[in-house]
Amino acid sequence: MDIAALRTAHPDHWKKATAIRSLTLDAVAAANSGHSGMPMGMADVATVLFEKHLNFDPKVPDWPNRDRFILSAGHGSMLLYALMYLTGYEDITLDQIKNFRQWGARTAGHPEYGHARGIETTTGPLGQGIANSVGFAIAEEVQRATWGKKIIDHYTYVMAGDGCLMEGVSQEAIGLAGMQKLGQLVVFFDNNNITIDGTVDMADITDQPARFAASGWHVQSIDGHDPEAIDAAITAAKQDPRPSMIACKTHIALGHAAQDTSKGHGALTDADQLRAAKEAYGAPLGEFEVEAAVKSQWEAIGARGEATRKDWESRFATLSATKQADFNRAYAGEAPKRLSATIRALKKQVTEGQPKVATRKSSEMVLEVINPVMQETIGGSADLTGSNNTKTSDLGIFTPENRKGRYIYYGVREHGMAAAMNGIALHGGMRPYGGTFMCFTDYARGAMRLSALMGVPVTYVMTHDSIGLGEDGPTHQPVEHLAMLRATPNMNVFRPADTVETAEAWEIALTATKAPSVLSLTRQGLPTVRKEHKNKNLTAQGAYVLAEAEGKRQAILMASGSEVATALEARDLLQADGIGTRVVSMPCWELFAAQDESYRRRVLPAGPVRVAIEAGVRLGWDQWLFGERGNAKKADFVGMPGFGASAPAERLFEEFGITAADTAAKVKALLK
Amino acid sequence: MDIAALRTAHPDHWKKATAIRSLTLDAVAAANSGHSGMPMGMADVATVLFEKHLNFDPKVPDWPNRDRFILSAGHGSMLLYALMYLTGYEDITLDQIKNFRQWGARTAGHPEYGHARGIETTTGPLGQGIANSVGFAIAEEVQRATWGKKIIDHYTYVMAGDGCLMEGVSQEAIGLAGMQKLGQLVVFFDNNNITIDGTVDMADITDQPARFAASGWHVQSIDGHDPEAIDAAITAAKQDPRPSMIACKTHIALGHAAQDTSKGHGALTDADQLRAAKEAYGAPLGEFEVEAAVKSQWEAIGARGEATRKDWESRFATLSATKQADFNRAYAGEAPKRLSATIRALKKQVTEGQPKVATRKSSEMVLEVINPVMQETIGGSADLTGSNNTKTSDLGIFTPENRKGRYIYYGVREHGMAAAMNGIALHGGMRPYGGTFMCFTDYARGAMRLSALMGVPVTYVMTHDSIGLGEDGPTHQPVEHLAMLRATPNMNVFRPADTVETAEAWEIALTATKAPSVLSLTRQGLPTVRKEHKNKNLTAQGAYVLAEAEGKRQAILMASGSEVATALEARDLLQADGIGTRVVSMPCWELFAAQDESYRRRVLPAGPVRVAIEAGVRLGWDQWLFGERGNAKKADFVGMPGFGASAPAERLFEEFGITAADTAAKVKALLK
Repeated sequence: MDIAALRTAHPDHWKKATAIRSLTLDAVAAANSGHSGMPMGMADVATVLFEKHLNFDPKVPDWPNRDRFILSAGHGSMLLYALMYLTGYEDITLDQIKNFRQWGARTAGHPEYGHARGIETTTGPLGQGIANSVGFAIAEEVQRATWGKKIIDHYTYVMAGDGCLMEGVSQEAIGLAGMQKLGQLVVFFDNNNITIDGTVDMADITDQPARFAASGWHVQSIDGHDPEAIDAAITAAKQDPRPSMIACKTHIALGHAAQDTSKGHGALTDADQLRAAKEAYGAPLGEFEVEAAVKSQWEAIGARGEATRKDWESRFATLSATKQADFNRAYAGEAPKRLSATIRALKKQVTEGQPKVATRKSSEMVLEVINPVMQETIGGSADLTGSNNTKTSDLGIFTPENRKGRYIYYGVREHGMAAAMNGIALHGGMRPYGGTFMCFTDYARGAMRLSALMGVPVTYVMTHDSIGLGEDGPTHQPVEHLAMLRATPNMNVFRPADTVETAEAWEIALTATKAPSVLSLTRQGLPTVRKEHKNKNLTAQGAYVLAEAEGKRQAILMASGSEVATALEARDLLQADGIGTRVVSMPCWELFAAQDESYRRRVLPAGPVRVAIEAGVRLGWDQWLFGERGNAKKADFVGMPGFGASAPAERLFEEFGITAADTAAKVKALLK
Repeated sequence: MDIAALRTAHPDHWKKATAIRSLTLDAVAAANSGHSGMPMGMADVATVLFEKHLNFDPKVPDWPNRDRFILSAGHGSMLLYALMYLTGYEDITLDQIKNFRQWGARTAGHPEYGHARGIETTTGPLGQGIANSVGFAIAEEVQRATWGKKIIDHYTYVMAGDGCLMEGVSQEAIGLAGMQKLGQLVVFFDNNNITIDGTVDMADITDQPARFAASGWHVQSIDGHDPEAIDAAITAAKQDPRPSMIACKTHIALGHAAQDTSKGHGALTDADQLRAAKEAYGAPLGEFEVEAAVKSQWEAIGARGEATRKDWESRFATLSATKQADFNRAYAGEAPKRLSATIRALKKQVTEGQPKVATRKSSEMVLEVINPVMQETIGGSADLTGSNNTKTSDLGIFTPENRKGRYIYYGVREHGMAAAMNGIALHGGMRPYGGTFMCFTDYARGAMRLSALMGVPVTYVMTHDSIGLGEDGPTHQPVEHLAMLRATPNMNVFRPADTVETAEAWEIALTATKAPSVLSLTRQGLPTVRKEHKNKNLTAQGAYVLAEAEGKRQAILMASGSEVATALEARDLLQADGIGTRVVSMPCWELFAAQDESYRRRVLPAGPVRVAIEAGVRLGWDQWLFGERGNAKKADFVGMPGFGASAPAERLFEEFGITAADTAAKVKALLK
């Protein structure tokens, strides 16, 4: 690469881009870890984007109508941090840059949502950013249609590398974006032909523009170091009605001895090579030094957005007070006041009617009353709409022709759906939920973990949550998935027993602001177990006494979801034999664990034998069976010993011994 | 669709295909569940494939050089079962067809590997079959190169639907297969434009042939009901040196009232419509009836392969006795006799040298000695070769130019790698292992679960297994992943403490025949904790006493992996204060749980306080802390309270309190 020619051709541009490159070199060297090559390769694209196109205001990083910038190649985090520092984001000071990757710094190894205002999403696990971006763009489309172009009308820009595009989730994102004609989504592909293992062609020969074009994208291929070509491509991308992909031919670690090599991907820390690179740039500056004039130019770029933002604020001020309040409420993640009363009314109605329905149907009943009063919900399913019961009558379908639609046919794309939902939630103003079979949390895991890590209140509607799925067999029957989800920090896992608990779980999910929720729901019909109406949300306590022992309390049965009814039946059998038995419904372990000890002690007192019933693996249950004043000698578990089988559901519960009779027998054995 | 014209044009073909269709209709109706439409749509392709191309012998379903047939759209299982019954596979009788989806039947809702000889892989979770098939084709290439075309030279045929192709894992498979020029892989795309939610274009507008072509595939588009077009396309596909995709335009549920509709995807059970469909086919036969002449024709197709198989046996018999034995040993999944001595020698050397190395490096040391003596291993990494330490000097790189290479650059494709490894293992004759960061088990979960469900002995090399990863931060630091893997049935999860345990874990993984193994390995250096050589594989017991208490045994410290060294340090602190402390290393819970109680009791006796140390979440540990004669009042855990952070590793262990001092303090608090 002829660095000198680049310098000469566009000297002002070059200096601005050099600031990014040299801060990257210095920060990685100081940290003695990190990824230098990507920021050095993409500095030109970033400079043109920020200088000429991106609408942003570092002083108000969360201005709702800003353009979103997603660094899908999150290992190149220094690109983002450098841009934020240079343009004047308060949270990213030079000290933060100097403390790159250190304890307590906002400048984590990969961009972490919440660490600094202006970081739009957590990236690093490859492919997530580009898949998030589809959600950002969907949210923008819905809100543009809903609020009008004067209020919402912005672009979502993404930088993705070879790694992002090799990850399968990228195909799910590309396919969804192409079909949905998300014209305000622009993806820059950092086409540097280098991965960690070597050149890309050692593992992939995909013609990426052709691949994107096959899914309905507008594609361009440019020299990623030519500021004029970059500018022209962005302009064209913005004008095209399709989502745009710009393949930017770049040199990883441009100007460094490791340019165009795998080594260039990682941490370039050699002092001599670092100095040589800076000299090649024509900027032999000191450590973390940025020429004052260049910093001023960057700050001017940062200041450019203030007027645009203020214009927007003026326009926003012309909305009615009600509309403004509603917009702000949705962006704050606050549920409408009517939600609580709506849920209470449904609970009352259900305790009176006592329907026997599958909890997936219960969930639909809840959504039917919620969606009309909570206009920021946006539902969907990964091609299992009729099975997940996620679509309610009022939503409308989100399509290129109907941007006000609030229901998305995500296609057979669990991972892409989960990642898009993260993006929708992160965009602000909307609250996404989406469904698939519980077993296919496996496919969505990569994005579900990020929901939890970022603390975004996405709701996962996971139906067919056990062998109760029946004939489809073990590939479709979750057994380990509850344990997997419970093992994940900052995730509320609900397994409601009936419609009342389902309504309560939804209320918690829809008022959560810092954690995702998973609703584990049955395929099979369940009786209403909550027969007495309470205004209070009992599920919020995580576990509670559903049926008290008659006579001396000798046994406590703990259960979740479909097995709560089994526990109640077992209680009948045991009480008939004079064995006083309490039934504890445990719809949410995380919330129960968060209760104070006195409450937990009231629910799970010492003394009685304990049997837990859940049509899944035992892992984790010992906390409640043996811990919490329990006794390992007086506890047992009724559940799955391993994978399921293909047969009608009733037969499976019998064969695997998850019945009232089996439960009662275990209690009696413990009492002997 | 003009059924009459199809019947007339190719009457013999039509009758054979009709047998598939009517068996499907009858079986689904009898089960009152299942998926009728796919087998009815793809019956013509299947008939031509089986009649004219597929090399198979129903009498010897596991003949090594057979062509492989993978039903990636596994919900269409009745297609496979019908073909197997019609052509005379012993395991799939008419009774099995009649018991479709019933308890104990081999004809599960989705094809389950191991239920019947002739089912090549478990499918149903969409995209897995096509991704497996890449592994089958890789195994074939390596073995063709190794053993010669006379011994191994076969095709791998796949049927995949829209759903398979929307799943991201399919892109990983397509990309890998295209780059690797797997010319003996042929994918039929069941292009019926129907998904569960409606027409495909409601979620996807991808031009699939263009997408495959972009990754280097040979593509064709044909009428999937025209037997001549099908035959010609297969012939062309076989001749082309690239992997081939044949887009077959089909009508889901052909000839049924539900044809070309979403309803046609599912269970078509209406008796009148069923009868009408059979009449349209010109075969108004009784339930499960197949015309005798047609059955004979199908049996003749089944008999066609016997001669080919016998020819192969003659050729195989010309190999030297040693070569035959080696081939058969590898196909039986038996390790070479030298493996055990090789491992023992390494262990001895390590206990003498006591190196301080990361267990990922330990793993490399083990592989360096194993790979030369175990020629059936085939390694790889999802673009983290240098980090996973999976490549040894003797393997060679598998590329289109070097088919004897035993190391695969899988690209940034964790899911595709895992699914391909399942295919390689299922093919027979090879034992795959592959690496990525432990955190990205998230991406590979869909296929890892199937390794466990099928019981295929794939080995996952998961490095950077805790906050010990350091600066890359929480997106890359597993905390819940050990729990997730332990929750999965039939999977051995190893977290070795040093090179000796790593060698022992590898020995178990490489001799396993019915379960996959996961090796959870550190980034950071660890001291050798096994300082005395034992021939016996102590890791095979799952847990064992590593250091005995001196004086009265007051405490037991349990730990795995990197925290075993921490436990030993804590023991030093405690012993210095006169507190007799035993350290139990627990490299594999599953194997410890499988020991008899007397052994477990010896390792974990009642009485002492127990503290477990593991740099992950607590979920599951209560089994060993509170259970197994433990006492909840005298037990504690040192581990992660939630997600990690970005900082140097040492700092993280200190900040999260996973140190010897923290451990000793918890023991002392319990002893008070």
